[in-house]
Parts: sequence; structure tokens; C-alpha cells
Amino acid sequence: MKNGVVEQGWEGWGHPKIGWCEGKRIWVGFGMALLVQKYGGSSVANLERIQKVADRVAESRRKGNRLVVVVSAMSGVTDGLLKMARGLHAEPSEREMDLLMATGEQTTTALLAIALQARGVAAVALTGAQAGIVTDGTHTKARIENVTPKAVEAHLRLGRVVIVAGFQGQTMDGQVTTLGRGGSDLTAIALAAVLKAKRCEIYTDVDGVYTADPRTEPKARKIAEISYDEMLELASTGAKVMQARSVEFAKKFGVVFEVRSSFNRARGTMVKTEAKSMERVVVRGVSLEKSQAKVTLAGVADRPGVAAKLFTGIAKAGINVDMIVQNVSLPTGGRNSKAQTDITFTVPREELAKVRKFLEPFRRSGGARQILFREGVAKLSVVGIGMRSHTGVAAQLFQALASARVNIQMISTSEIKITVVVDEDAGPKAVRAAHREFRLGKRG
Amino acid sequence: MKNGVVEQGWEGWGHPKIGWCEGKRIWVGFGMALLVQKYGGSSVANLERIQKVADRVAESRRKGNRLVVVVSAMSGVTDGLLKMARGLHAEPSEREMDLLMATGEQTTTALLAIALQARGVAAVALTGAQAGIVTDGTHTKARIENVTPKAVEAHLRLGRVVIVAGFQGQTMDGQVTTLGRGGSDLTAIALAAVLKAKRCEIYTDVDGVYTADPRTEPKARKIAEISYDEMLELASTGAKVMQARSVEFAKKFGVVFEVRSSFNRARGTMVKTEAKSMERVVVRGVSLEKSQAKVTLAGVADRPGVAAKLFTGIAKAGINVDMIVQNVSLPTGGRNSKAQTDITFTVPREELAKVRKFLEPFRRSGGARQILFREGVAKLSVVGIGMRSHTGVAAQLFQALASARVNIQMISTSEIKITVVVDEDAGPKAVRAAHREFRLGKRG
Repeated sequence: MKNGVVEQGWEGWGHPKIGWCEGKRIWVGFGMALLVQKYGGSSVANLERIQKVADRVAESRRKGNRLVVVVSAMSGVTDGLLKMARGLHAEPSEREMDLLMATGEQTTTALLAIALQARGVAAVALTGAQAGIVTDGTHTKARIENVTPKAVEAHLRLGRVVIVAGFQGQTMDGQVTTLGRGGSDLTAIALAAVLKAKRCEIYTDVDGVYTADPRTEPKARKIAEISYDEMLELASTGAKVMQARSVEFAKKFGVVFEVRSSFNRARGTMVKTEAKSMERVVVRGVSLEKSQAKVTLAGVADRPGVAAKLFTGIAKAGINVDMIVQNVSLPTGGRNSKAQTDITFTVPREELAKVRKFLEPFRRSGGARQILFREGVAKLSVVGIGMRSHTGVAAQLFQALASARVNIQMISTSEIKITVVVDEDAGPKAVRAAHREFRLGKRG
Repeated sequence: MKNGVVEQGWEGWGHPKIGWCEGKRIWVGFGMALLVQKYGGSSVANLERIQKVADRVAESRRKGNRLVVVVSAMSGVTDGLLKMARGLHAEPSEREMDLLMATGEQTTTALLAIALQARGVAAVALTGAQAGIVTDGTHTKARIENVTPKAVEAHLRLGRVVIVAGFQGQTMDGQVTTLGRGGSDLTAIALAAVLKAKRCEIYTDVDGVYTADPRTEPKARKIAEISYDEMLELASTGAKVMQARSVEFAKKFGVVFEVRSSFNRARGTMVKTEAKSMERVVVRGVSLEKSQAKVTLAGVADRPGVAAKLFTGIAKAGINVDMIVQNVSLPTGGRNSKAQTDITFTVPREELAKVRKFLEPFRRSGGARQILFREGVAKLSVVGIGMRSHTGVAAQLFQALASARVNIQMISTSEIKITVVVDEDAGPKAVRAAHREFRLGKRG
């Protein structure tokens, strides 16, 4: 007659435990939850910080969680390696840069595993390759092709905390690759997806996602829950907590993740599939992107293919164009007049020189009558999935900005976002006006 | 009608080139020589040194050599990593230490490849794993099980200089391992063996192997050629240019290697299979190992198994015993007398405390009547394969030492080596006497 737990599944979180009681198989309950945690560079910046992270991981483990921990390079290490490489070659080869950079995360994994072992916690360190992160061969910004977490699962099964080097992977033929900006987040989200983790915790140096930048708006409040789409819009408009690609990946695979700080114990922001209840909030947050420039091409021929040609060229020149607005075409009325239009777009200010260099020949070859550049503008966005079911949000924003005497230079709207271009100087005032208007300072 | 070189073999150096001339296959000649170079930690200590190594490699490449370059970690890096790990755990796990340490060499490979690319030299960096260094799973001192240099050969075929991370390998199941002390030399020798390289060049911070330590004997002279066996005896007796295991490996596979400096252009010492001509030199060199201690066990029972038990215990205690001398057994003559003997051995002085701790219980349990410890001794060895065919070398040495008033405390001889223990203070005088006696200051 056997009693007790004798079998358990290992696929993902909340795996069932099947036990024996008086000779019959019975349902015992859910097993330990699988969590994926990710600690960024500032969270593991030095030995002291690594000790703190080890304390935190050990605590979570003692609570009974099964854990996969993804780490970045200690902050400063990546820059140091980059500086050395640049000291040898102005444009070092991307393949060798990947091999070089990958050492940073590998170092952190080994140190964190050792720190955990010192706490009596069984832990094992794995490179991206060992963890089964398989990528394409696009060095320095590789894409994850698949994740084969056999080794991770085997170590978990043996009760070990598995420390994985973020930001890196390996091609099918054994080349070391890195995933580009935000790569460690992506490693964590991808592992959480394939391991069917209960949750992914992204530890960083901010508390979570706020209704506005607290440095601009003192009344800004931490958002408890946010949908992937809202997070994406906020990520792409200045609230740079996470790269859009990681959020997109999480959305695609339904990975629930929490953005929180490794420097305190406060709950962070949960990012998840939108729920009905979320729609009650019309605007989730306000973001402000400063240091933008506005480029206006006046007198562009209004015929099919002109805009396509223009922006294809701009993209090829490596210029990162954002908002594009084209006014309604007005014939000039002269004898030889043809339909003409004006096109305005924004770019980050530091790309303005590249834009000028590209557009001057375009103007000279008759592509536009005149080109106007304006620096010192900012983009303000309000984001919320509730907009879909609420009308008049745009009018409400414009009214609030008018009351605050903020002039709107450009407008662009999407299903869950309204963006306006304003004077950079007026940016903070505009943020506060929008924040107040949509009552973001009050608990939802 | 085709002319020119169109086929060539790629196995090792001096591979044949087969050409076509007037429609017939013809013998064209030998192709470019394959060299394996190894640069140690002090040779790649910083960016400036890496630039110098890159210049040197680029020059060798331009002369037409095909090159595999094995590098160590930049000096100081390994110690830094070790210090961090020890800051987290007194005895960090060996598996994680290997993962940590392996980043050191990986960093150097990437930097050197980048420095070469900056010189217009096609180069590629490989980890030990990528270079096909397969080891057993003994972390921190793994043994090479085999080398599968497919990737190395493929890159060579494409005309690239192949930079390989020394000191490291990978087990069959993908664990990162390191090879222990002298591991980078071993990587270089192993690659030279499997690639059938023409020669392996070991670049270090000394010029080569000398007839004696130039700091002790100003008349010491660089040895142009030395046999593996002589090198082994010198390596194991204080001339610490290379670890014995690398020399043994080279001997086993007949790899000709040169020990030379990366800080100057002087030719170094060629280490190779012994040639008849080498036997003309009776003594190749003199070495002095300082900081030794002598331990005498008096009144040890002279029966089978006693020495075995004693030295098995000492080995288990991790004590590195070297010379062992046992005197002829003399019965003490008393009524209950049994045959007794005296055993003397040497240990490095820093191990004396461990030895005392181990031997005290041995004495108390009746293993020996008395134990004598003596610090401040040194081991002097003269080495040469010529000894095999020359008699009276030992007598000649003893006479020379006597003339110099150096007292001999212990003697031990092997086929190509004579070792004596002398007072540490008398060591330098003894080296000079032996060096003069065997005319080592003069060109062979």
C-alpha cells in the first residue's frame, strides 16, 4: 500500500502531481511553479549586486519555485569590450564581435551560479548555446529560430536553478551570435514561452511601467497591469523599459511577464493579454519623446510612387523615420501647374545630418520645391486600449493641450494611440496636462 | 589547354601542389608551410601587445605561411576572474570555474582576429570547442581525448589565419572544460600534431631554453636544439619554460616545436626528436630548484609494503614528493632488534607544514623512530642524452662540486639526469661549477 506523491509531469507550470493513496492513483494538486527571471546589467553590476541577486533567487527557490535565471553582462563590461575592439579596428567584424561580447554574459552566469552554490542552492550555469538558443546567422542582431531546452529541462528535473547567459545564441553550425539590443529580455521571454513558465520576471533598475515619466510628472503612478499592445505603443514612444521585439514575442506566445526592480521589493507592472476589465481605462499612459526633428518637403509631385521612392531611399540610407503626415493635395492653379503635395515626417535629432545629406540631391533633381528642417520638437503620445470603445479621446486631448496653451504641430492617430508633435520646451507642460485630463494620477 | 595550379592537397605542411601544363598533370612543388603559433598571456597582455602579435602574425602570413594561432588569456585576466569567483565562494564549483575561465581566451581570440582584419589579413576566431578540442569531463584539468579540426581546416582552405582559444575544450556533451596549467601550450601542440604542421612556435617571455638560469650563471647560453627527453628533464627540474605534459604530447606525436620570445626577433630553442649529433653533447643544461625541504624518517621497519603505505598516504594528502632515497638497511643489533631503514625525500618548502601534519601520527603509531626536517636545501640537476654513451659523468660532477667546496647531501640518478641535493646557499656556486665543468658556456 503506497501513499504519497510518486509521479509528476514536468511540462510547464502548474504541472499536475499524481499521487498514490490506498492503492489508487489520486490527484494531488499542482506542483511547484516554474518562473523565469531576468536580471539586467545594472542588477548584476558588481560582486555586491550579484550577491543581492543570489539572495533573491535563493529566497524564491526556498519558496518552492523552480527557476530559470537569465542574466546580462555586468554593466560596463560590454562597453569595455567594445572599446577594446574599436581600439583595434574602426569597424570590427561582426562575427568576432559576437564571440567577444558573448563572454560578458557567460562570466555573469558562472559568477551567479557560484554565488548560489555558496548559499547551498544547487545551480548550474549555461551559455546561450548550451541552453538551446538557436539563431540565424545575422551576427550582432540575430533572430531566435528555435529553442531546444533539453539541457535546461534536465537540470530543472534535478532540482537545480538554471542560470542562462542572455543576449546570445548559436547557429546550427556552431557560430556564436548575439541578439542585439534588448537581447537578454528576449532570451528570458523565449525560454518562458518554450518552457511554459507560469511567469517571467524582468528585473531592471526601474520599478515598472508608469503612467508618465515620473521625472516629468510627479503625480505619475505605477501601472499594475497593462496589455501587450499598450506596452508596445509605450515602448515605441519613449517609455524605454523594454524593446518592442521582446514584447511582441511575449504577445505572440502569450508569455505573462512582470517588469520590476531588483533594487527593492515592490511589485512591478504585469504585462499580459488584454482583459475586458482593462478597457475601462481609456488612457493607460502618456509618453514624451524628446530630441526630435521635423522635416517638411513642400511641393512634392502628387502622383503614385513618389512617397514610396522617397522613403525607400531614406530607409536605405539607414535613417529611422517615425511619424509621416501628408497633407491633402492642392493644385497651385498656374498654367503648367501639376498636383503637388507637402510631406512632413519626424526623425531623431541626431539623424538630421544624414537626412539633409540624403534630401539635398532629391530636391535638386526636382523631387521637392523646398525643404524645411525644424529641430527642438517632441512627440507626445497617449496610449490605451480603452480608446477603441470610447469616442472623443482625441478631441479631449486637443482641448486639454489648448487649455494649457500648447500648440499642436502635427497629429497622427492609430487604434490605441494618439500622437501629437509639440515644441520640445512645451513637452513637460503637455504631459502634465494630458496626465491630469485623463486622471492618470488616480488609482484606476 | 589549361595551365597553372588547380589542385592541391591540404594534409599538413609541404602538401603537394598538382598543376596542369599543356593538358597533362604535372608536379608543381610543395605548397605553403603550415605553422601553429602560440602566444602566452604576457605576449597578449594588453592592446599594445596584441597589436605587436598581430604585426608578427601578419608578417608570417605575408611570407606565405598558412597559420593557426593559439592564444592565452591576457595576463591578469585569469587572476581577476579567479578573484571574483573566490569573492563569492571559498571553493567555487569546477564546472562553473571552467565556464568562467574560458571567457579569458575567447576574448583574446576575438581581439587578435579583429587586429589582423585591421591589417587586411583574413582571420577568424574560434573557441576551443569550435576548433574541435574534445576533452574528458575532468573540469579544471581536463585531458584532450581527440581533436577534430574540420572547422580549422575549412577556414585554412579559405586562406584565413585561424585564431584558436588555448587552454579550453568541450566534452562530447557540450560542457566547457579547461586543460589546467600549461593548457594553451597543449592546445597548440595538439593542433600541430593533428594538422601535421611543419612546426609549432611557442611564443613566451623568455628567449628559449638556456644551459642554466642566466640570473644565476651569467655565462649561460641559449640552447639551439634539444631533445624531447632533455626538455622533459629540464621542465621537471626548475627550467619552467613549459609543462611536462605538453612536451610529452609533442614527443608522442613527433611535433617539432620552437620556444622563443614574442618580445624580440631572436631564434629560440628547437625541441625535437633526438638526433645522433645531439649525443656529442654530454650535458645539455643545468637546473637548480630552490626552496626545497628534506625530510628524513629514521628507523622505519624494513619490510615490504612500508614505503608503499607511507607514500600512498603522502600522495593522498596532496603532497608533492620528489626525490626519494632509501639507505641500505642495517640491523640495530639489540635483543628485540628488527631490520630498520632510513628514508629521505624532498618536498617543496611550502608543503612542509602539510608533511609534518601527516607524518606526526605516522611516527606516533610506530611507523618511524624519529623524523628530521631540514629546510634551506636546493636540487641541482645536470641533464643530457649524451650521458647514455659517456661514462664518468656523475664522478665528474661530484669532483667539480667538491672542488667548489659544495657538500652533497643526497644523490639520485636516471639515464639522462643526475640530481644532487645541496645547501640552498651553495646552489648558485654549484650551478656555476657544473656549468664550467661541462663547458656549457661554449658553443657546442
